[in-house]
Amino acid sequence: MAGTDTSLPITLAPGPAIILCEPQLGENIGSTARAMANFGLWDLRLVRPRDGWPNEKAVAAASRADHVLERVRVFETLEAAIADLTLVYATTARSRDMQKEVLGPEEASSNMARHIGGGQGAGLLFGRERWGLLNDEVAMADAIVTLPVEPAFASLNIAQAVLLMSYEWRRNGGAGKALPFSEGLDEAAPREELVGLFQHLEGVLDQSGFFTTPDKRPSMVNNLRTALTRGRFTSQEIRTLRGVISSIDRRHERPNPNRQKPQAKDEPKE
Amino acid sequence: MAGTDTSLPITLAPGPAIILCEPQLGENIGSTARAMANFGLWDLRLVRPRDGWPNEKAVAAASRADHVLERVRVFETLEAAIADLTLVYATTARSRDMQKEVLGPEEASSNMARHIGGGQGAGLLFGRERWGLLNDEVAMADAIVTLPVEPAFASLNIAQAVLLMSYEWRRNGGAGKALPFSEGLDEAAPREELVGLFQHLEGVLDQSGFFTTPDKRPSMVNNLRTALTRGRFTSQEIRTLRGVISSIDRRHERPNPNRQKPQAKDEPKE
Repeated sequence: MAGTDTSLPITLAPGPAIILCEPQLGENIGSTARAMANFGLWDLRLVRPRDGWPNEKAVAAASRADHVLERVRVFETLEAAIADLTLVYATTARSRDMQKEVLGPEEASSNMARHIGGGQGAGLLFGRERWGLLNDEVAMADAIVTLPVEPAFASLNIAQAVLLMSYEWRRNGGAGKALPFSEGLDEAAPREELVGLFQHLEGVLDQSGFFTTPDKRPSMVNNLRTALTRGRFTSQEIRTLRGVISSIDRRHERPNPNRQKPQAKDEPKE
Repeated sequence: MAGTDTSLPITLAPGPAIILCEPQLGENIGSTARAMANFGLWDLRLVRPRDGWPNEKAVAAASRADHVLERVRVFETLEAAIADLTLVYATTARSRDMQKEVLGPEEASSNMARHIGGGQGAGLLFGRERWGLLNDEVAMADAIVTLPVEPAFASLNIAQAVLLMSYEWRRNGGAGKALPFSEGLDEAAPREELVGLFQHLEGVLDQSGFFTTPDKRPSMVNNLRTALTRGRFTSQEIRTLRGVISSIDRRHERPNPNRQKPQAKDEPKE
């Protein structure tokens, strides 16, 4: 369907970021940029694209969505890619054994519109072509978004999934549904602070021997991150929690010689 | 996004037909089949596909949407492709100078759901890759459907447009919104009867010298068809109209020598 009016200026209205985790094919990155442009999105972020960036095949597939391609940002880690966001949804077609809320595209768009309308940043994660998002990536998200596909034929490529979410953003979320002020509930900390909390905690747990066998560590970490993400902590709460961790940690590292010990028996002495 | 559950049977629920007019690339036909399958559609019709049918590239792009590909039907004319349908929408991203209603995807899906729920057939027309639908094809439709794309970046490929309409069908139209009985208003004649009326009328007008210059004929025909389609005639009305045309036509072809002409002038007598 041709029909672009090239005389019109492209405006960069506030909208969710699209984050592709380890995309393999340049063509899919380009088609994603095009799909975003069709519905007014422009903030595309890539985590470790297999063939590097920039990518000629992406340019060819983008059908002149130059205003998206020019602004692509590449990150070494998902954590860095979502550092400035305060609402992150993971798109997936498979159910995961995680204690995460599952939303449809309309509800996700409405939530993002409220959030972005309140001046905050939101993003949608999309997985690699072959096997989607890893569980440790899904664990970083506030909720899962899934599309109402036919269960017997559920396979969508990345650009199609992005197209549908972008369409929903414009149709159902968009600027029209943004509220004039933000809810108190939306004051979650920027994601980099949450990641800081995770890394702090996991580092401490590594030292403490919490992860009994190395092969169980990844799933234990995911479960922890999932639980902690659901809390939607504020910056102040994260500072408090990190203080809690440090405090407990320090107690074992540098036992307080002045402490008394009426009942508690098993404290290290060195 | 992987996630197909191959243990589930594919069901062919009632839904709109997707009609591609002169598709050029097999890949696009295959991607269209896949997009349809994602949201439970399966009736794909091709009008004069450039590279014939079956097409290996279509199979490769369809990602095993075999239940759609196996049922593809190929037609020589658009008229034949929509002969059994009673509600036809033309998708286009360009505004046309036609007296046709323009619908958004949600409204189109709701209308189709009501129609199909009443046991009738509906279809969506999609144009060729390069320049979409021709005006004489749009003229055959009851209304135009257009997607809420960004006007400054409106270009969607066929499979993406089909994907979005299929998604809307499932999300907004689907079986859930079908009413248990059909409205009286929906008893329009099958499209082949309307085409019969058009051809009858245009043949008569060719004979009658209605089309003053050959280069104006196409646009005059389109305007006529557009006007006549909007009426949503019943079969009975079409028979009546054709009787009217024949009657007028016959009078000129074989003037009745017995006709009298004082006051009651124009009644055929044979």
